Amino acid sequence: MEVLAPPIFLLTDFGDRDHYVGHVKAVIAGIAPRAPVVDISHGIEPFAIDEAAWMLEITLPVLPESAVLVAVVDPGVGTSRRALAACRDGRYFVGPDNGVLTPVLRGLRGRHEGECDVREITAPQFQRATVSSTFHGRDIFAPVAAHLAAGLDFRRVGSPASEPVLLPPCEGEPHGFGRLRGHIVHIDRYGNLVTTIRASQLFPQFVIEACGCEIDVRVRTFAEAPRGAPFCHAGSSGFIVIAVNEGSAAELLGASRGDPVLVRAR
Amino acid sequence: MEVLAPPIFLLTDFGDRDHYVGHVKAVIAGIAPRAPVVDISHGIEPFAIDEAAWMLEITLPVLPESAVLVAVVDPGVGTSRRALAACRDGRYFVGPDNGVLTPVLRGLRGRHEGECDVREITAPQFQRATVSSTFHGRDIFAPVAAHLAAGLDFRRVGSPASEPVLLPPCEGEPHGFGRLRGHIVHIDRYGNLVTTIRASQLFPQFVIEACGCEIDVRVRTFAEAPRGAPFCHAGSSGFIVIAVNEGSAAELLGASRGDPVLVRAR
Amino acid sequence: MEVLAPPIFLLTDFGDRDHYVGHVKAVIAGIAPRAPVVDISHGIEPFAIDEAAWMLEITLPVLPESAVLVAVVDPGVGTSRRALAACRDGRYFVGPDNGVLTPVLRGLRGRHEGECDVREITAPQFQRATVSSTFHGRDIFAPVAAHLAAGLDFRRVGSPASEPVLLPPCEGEPHGFGRLRGHIVHIDRYGNLVTTIRASQLFPQFVIEACGCEIDVRVRTFAEAPRGAPFCHAGSSGFIVIAVNEGSAAELLGASRGDPVLVRAR
Repeated sequence: MEVLAPPIFLLTDFGDRDHYVGHVKAVIAGIAPRAPVVDISHGIEPFAIDEAAWMLEITLPVLPESAVLVAVVDPGVGTSRRALAACRDGRYFVGPDNGVLTPVLRGLRGRHEGECDVREITAPQFQRATVSSTFHGRDIFAPVAAHLAAGLDFRRVGSPASEPVLLPPCEGEPHGFGRLRGHIVHIDRYGNLVTTIRASQLFPQFVIEACGCEIDVRVRTFAEAPRGAPFCHAGSSGFIVIAVNEGSAAELLGASRGDPVLVRAR
Repeated sequence: MEVLAPPIFLLTDFGDRDHYVGHVKAVIAGIAPRAPVVDISHGIEPFAIDEAAWMLEITLPVLPESAVLVAVVDPGVGTSRRALAACRDGRYFVGPDNGVLTPVLRGLRGRHEGECDVREITAPQFQRATVSSTFHGRDIFAPVAAHLAAGLDFRRVGSPASEPVLLPPCEGEPHGFGRLRGHIVHIDRYGNLVTTIRASQLFPQFVIEACGCEIDVRVRTFAEAPRGAPFCHAGSSGFIVIAVNEGSAAELLGASRGDPVLVRAR
Repeated sequence: MEVLAPPIFLLTDFGDRDHYVGHVKAVIAGIAPRAPVVDISHGIEPFAIDEAAWMLEITLPVLPESAVLVAVVDPGVGTSRRALAACRDGRYFVGPDNGVLTPVLRGLRGRHEGECDVREITAPQFQRATVSSTFHGRDIFAPVAAHLAAGLDFRRVGSPASEPVLLPPCEGEPHGFGRLRGHIVHIDRYGNLVTTIRASQLFPQFVIEACGCEIDVRVRTFAEAPRGAPFCHAGSSGFIVIAVNEGSAAELLGASRGDPVLVRAR
């Protein structure tokens, strides 16, 4: 059976009400009409590079073997920040050199040569004829992703890029004996608070402090939790989530993205 | 001409800002890359099973002959509630056993054997290798839907399921002589109030009471209605809609989803 | 290689939380299953025909050579306003006759015969069997677009339509010597204010008055601008945009869509 082009996944802070995502897709459709396009999310908080990097990390395990992913949160668009493309495990990733690609780039240097490859996108023939100063998603990242999906040899996008920007790992940091420090990296539609604390980091007996509230109940399913009081669970992607049963933890706790989260053993 | 896989339709309360819908689509892309994916809506109010069942009902008439539909509003995820798959008129439906599939399941028992089939999803090989306690949309319903779109024999998902949960029918209930009782099941983007009263139920001369307001004007098009005052019309899907011309009935009446609606003949 | 049907682009004020877009796509999937569907935007302000016409104009340069575009902002649905289909440069456009298609229709009359073609959609066999009074996006425009994508001879949709409704051009109007008058046509997700003033119209030395504020700084990239104070730039689509660096100009200036914008030379 004839094979479609690999799907192109999009992860941006472009939101859902403007034409930005639509124009990215229109450019892709013109270059790689056989590549399905899949939105991971466009609801990243504007300019929140760390949130996009977190979402990219939890997206890696669900990506098909053949995939191209475009990650654009780009406050530095139009400046000298580089445009990157990476090839890892047969998948391609494109985005600005500002840390948004951290989960893909981290640890690459320790690998055998040939296993991975990070390049600066410079070849003009795979970009739009006119590149604007404010919308590289449309003018650089979309066309390069589409050309890669359509079969372009990865090495033709540009020369290897040294020392790409990397964010600190998304995890709880040790903060004294039996203590971890993290923050709220994402608030979801239900008001669940996703933290940077990995489920594997949580002490068997713990207290989480967040937004002036102490939480020491961990459940496996929403139905186990009492209504009205916050609890935590492992999340569906391996990060500790603070939640309220059939309610909004964000509202109940008055939480905002970026708020600190402290964990201590008890 | 070579045929694509049947399209997979998604109807959830996942919202548009998180990765939930994107991860469902990524899982589908890995299993059934040739199946187009179509969003019906992800804007169902969180946990509003009745709203999703209503939307599923009005979606049935526009589904193509070959289709797979995933309906997930799932407050009981991770508990003992069953995961269901149904085959009706050559189309497949998957979702939790909490009533969300009511429009598909209702009336099935009266049919000739073989015409329809409801099963509990149990076969692990069509689910993700690790099933989380909080995201069966990604781990069970998406992969089963994708396998069905890719040609899986429906009977292999699991054994027949008896007595699936059914919601009461979505329609006005008789409430004394010449009276009907219903509620607002959905408020749309324009502030239109969609009620559970079927257009075919409305008396020729009527008064609708909703949100402290009385409405007795029924129009065929928005342009027939005076500006600023609420009126009703048959809706595009057969349920009575309370609207305001080029304005928001929800704002004008201070309406919320679930508010009661009474109809009396006059 | 076998070719997919041309993509169908959607541009509406339907929003993202209802079933409207989903039902349009379901109808398309039933008629033209091989046509990819691409959302340009459904975030047009309800009933804002001028905003949709502006977005259609900036979308034309990114459309692939083969494309069908459905533009629906339709306060007059169900009245005697005509349904139009246009063929221009090998692409097809469908939408109500209320000005939303202006960027496609303008200037057509000056061209050689055969280059373009505007028709009233009348042939019932390319519409849904039952046409509602309130949802022609689903019942007329989606099926006609799908039939066109599937290869229908354009001339079969109906007879040529004379004098379609045209909006005034989207540009700054001369308003005395060295002065231009326009308005805010779109506010984006970041709070950027897109004006109807074309970048090519801006005087080398200028003052823009908008929302009680005077702006005389024009930058090429966001990074050039000081934080906290509004500035303007050429936008990624050729219209002057009023912005604030990593902040919301809409919030800072208290701006609304439609607010007047004055430009004077200095």
